[in-house]
Amino acid sequence: MLCGYLPFWGASLLVYFADAVPLLFVPRIEPRDHIPAGLRVQEYPWGDLTCSDPYAVLVSAVAHELAKVRLKPERVGLSASASRTSLPIQAAEQIPMAEDFAGRMSELVAKPDRKIQSAFADLYLRKTPEEVQAIRLANRVANRGLQVFVENLQPGIAEAEVAAAVESAIYRQIGRDGIFHSRGWAMVQSGPNSADAGRFNRSTGRRLANGDLVVIELATCVNGYWSDLTRTAAVGSTTASVDEILTAVKDAQRSSIKGIRPGVSACEIDALARKTLAAQGLSSFFTHHTGHHVGFRYHDPGFLIAPDANAPLEPGMVITIEPGAYVPERWAGARIEDNVLVTESGHEVLSRAEENNQP
Amino acid sequence: MLCGYLPFWGASLLVYFADAVPLLFVPRIEPRDHIPAGLRVQEYPWGDLTCSDPYAVLVSAVAHELAKVRLKPERVGLSASASRTSLPIQAAEQIPMAEDFAGRMSELVAKPDRKIQSAFADLYLRKTPEEVQAIRLANRVANRGLQVFVENLQPGIAEAEVAAAVESAIYRQIGRDGIFHSRGWAMVQSGPNSADAGRFNRSTGRRLANGDLVVIELATCVNGYWSDLTRTAAVGSTTASVDEILTAVKDAQRSSIKGIRPGVSACEIDALARKTLAAQGLSSFFTHHTGHHVGFRYHDPGFLIAPDANAPLEPGMVITIEPGAYVPERWAGARIEDNVLVTESGHEVLSRAEENNQP
Repeated sequence: MLCGYLPFWGASLLVYFADAVPLLFVPRIEPRDHIPAGLRVQEYPWGDLTCSDPYAVLVSAVAHELAKVRLKPERVGLSASASRTSLPIQAAEQIPMAEDFAGRMSELVAKPDRKIQSAFADLYLRKTPEEVQAIRLANRVANRGLQVFVENLQPGIAEAEVAAAVESAIYRQIGRDGIFHSRGWAMVQSGPNSADAGRFNRSTGRRLANGDLVVIELATCVNGYWSDLTRTAAVGSTTASVDEILTAVKDAQRSSIKGIRPGVSACEIDALARKTLAAQGLSSFFTHHTGHHVGFRYHDPGFLIAPDANAPLEPGMVITIEPGAYVPERWAGARIEDNVLVTESGHEVLSRAEENNQP
Repeated sequence: MLCGYLPFWGASLLVYFADAVPLLFVPRIEPRDHIPAGLRVQEYPWGDLTCSDPYAVLVSAVAHELAKVRLKPERVGLSASASRTSLPIQAAEQIPMAEDFAGRMSELVAKPDRKIQSAFADLYLRKTPEEVQAIRLANRVANRGLQVFVENLQPGIAEAEVAAAVESAIYRQIGRDGIFHSRGWAMVQSGPNSADAGRFNRSTGRRLANGDLVVIELATCVNGYWSDLTRTAAVGSTTASVDEILTAVKDAQRSSIKGIRPGVSACEIDALARKTLAAQGLSSFFTHHTGHHVGFRYHDPGFLIAPDANAPLEPGMVITIEPGAYVPERWAGARIEDNVLVTESGHEVLSRAEENNQP
């Protein structure tokens, strides 16, 4: 976010000076070719058999750098919330942080600095034009996956097989268009399983059948920036009562997106979707929020697009709009999700081709 | 580990009584069909729009249960190390834990209980027969992925395309043989990139060429149990100096595995691999440990198979054996990794077909 760098694995640490070039500490094992220009880079011996406590080395190196510029602990802020991070490139394991790392780091800081926390929250909420470009690319890659989703919707194929094909199409993009990292997490729920999609998303071995609604929830990370999309499609011909769910959800989503412009509050956008679903008698089947911020991770922190959220939308915000209706007694559920940029004059749907972006 | 349950997402919490049925708290949104029998299950309102602090509900529910059985805080242990957990089923994001959750939970405990920590460490180190079976299944699934790896080794295919095909083959297993969750993380490095495989693993857009060594690092999670495998193979015909690397690494790995039996110390097993590589003048290119515990996660905690590890091997331990040699001046690197169970009389390679398990 602050320097465009996506860690590979282990702990990387950015010291962001108010008036000097940012300093990035990376493990010695880190690949260097994807570290952006415009940073000072310093390595520390993480992943080195001869170093039993790399975190101690890191903390004292940071202390040393702060001493060099005579920064007093009172002037240092620390954003140490590990639960607010995206996944590193090597995503098969949580980063093995030393348990007391945050504690050791906080010794470099005189007192918890609330101002730093809110400054970070602010940076999360509004994306720069470069960041929007990166999120646009993530959505373009995700759409190649969604194309494979549609191509695979045939009776007899298993949910997990469809999801596997979609993820594969996304991973294969590495090396094209400046993409050094591309990974998708696809979860496909079909027929009766789609009625669960409001609570959880996963893929099972169930085979698609004629008349199914099929929901795909797709998280995509490209070069460290995220897209979060959902599509629902029918296999063959559906009954009228199943059709009604999908049509209502599409209308609800369109209605919310149409309302997006600076100054409108999140709860107003949420209400637009709920109103449309209520008109079809489906409001009790829409059990979650209408959206959230997205881009630096699958779900960015910040206010939800939800009934109790009074915060106004501002230019540069990127949010998901994802109403759904999940109706167990019809054995069907649907959700449609896009990623939408709030612009100066209205909005732009980053996850659809430009011709679909009429106001 | 203690109950065979793999969380979907959000925080699940297991209260393990010394003399009563374990109690599992799960988010209300959690799917129920993969929760094992033999547990009491209690839900709490995580993922519920109307509940702003689910963690508070969870902590007080746990306190209530402890009070019901009149358990004094002195008798309660807490294993709260989030960095020591495997990935949940929904792996696209770190679990959004409340930052002060461990702190709130520790109020239920009179004092940090060292005995609990070492009891947990002990459970990690020795696998039960049921757990070994589950790790065996993870390895069987991983091997289907490795078969696809070999089938794809053709000049012109990109590293990322090979890796994508392997992961896809693993994901597709969901629904077969009692598999409700199956996910692979494959990283393929070819030609000069294979010389980096001792520091990091990733896939790029580089296309395979005749004479390449190709290293695949493959993490596989099946139903919550992990396999960690590496294979190295040649594309077409390699030069003698490249061949030498692969042959030496294969010999080193065989030598270490042959030495595995109860009572032998980890450093002795490590030394066997190092000695073989040294005989070929390659010891300085083997820059990491020989292995680690595996099964509950990609890398289980516990002693490494490394030069300074004096701990003895014991029956029930499952370790990786993964020597490598990475030689930049020959533009090539190799690593071979298997998962090996220490048995009463010797060892069993869980990641190879049984005919390869001759002593």
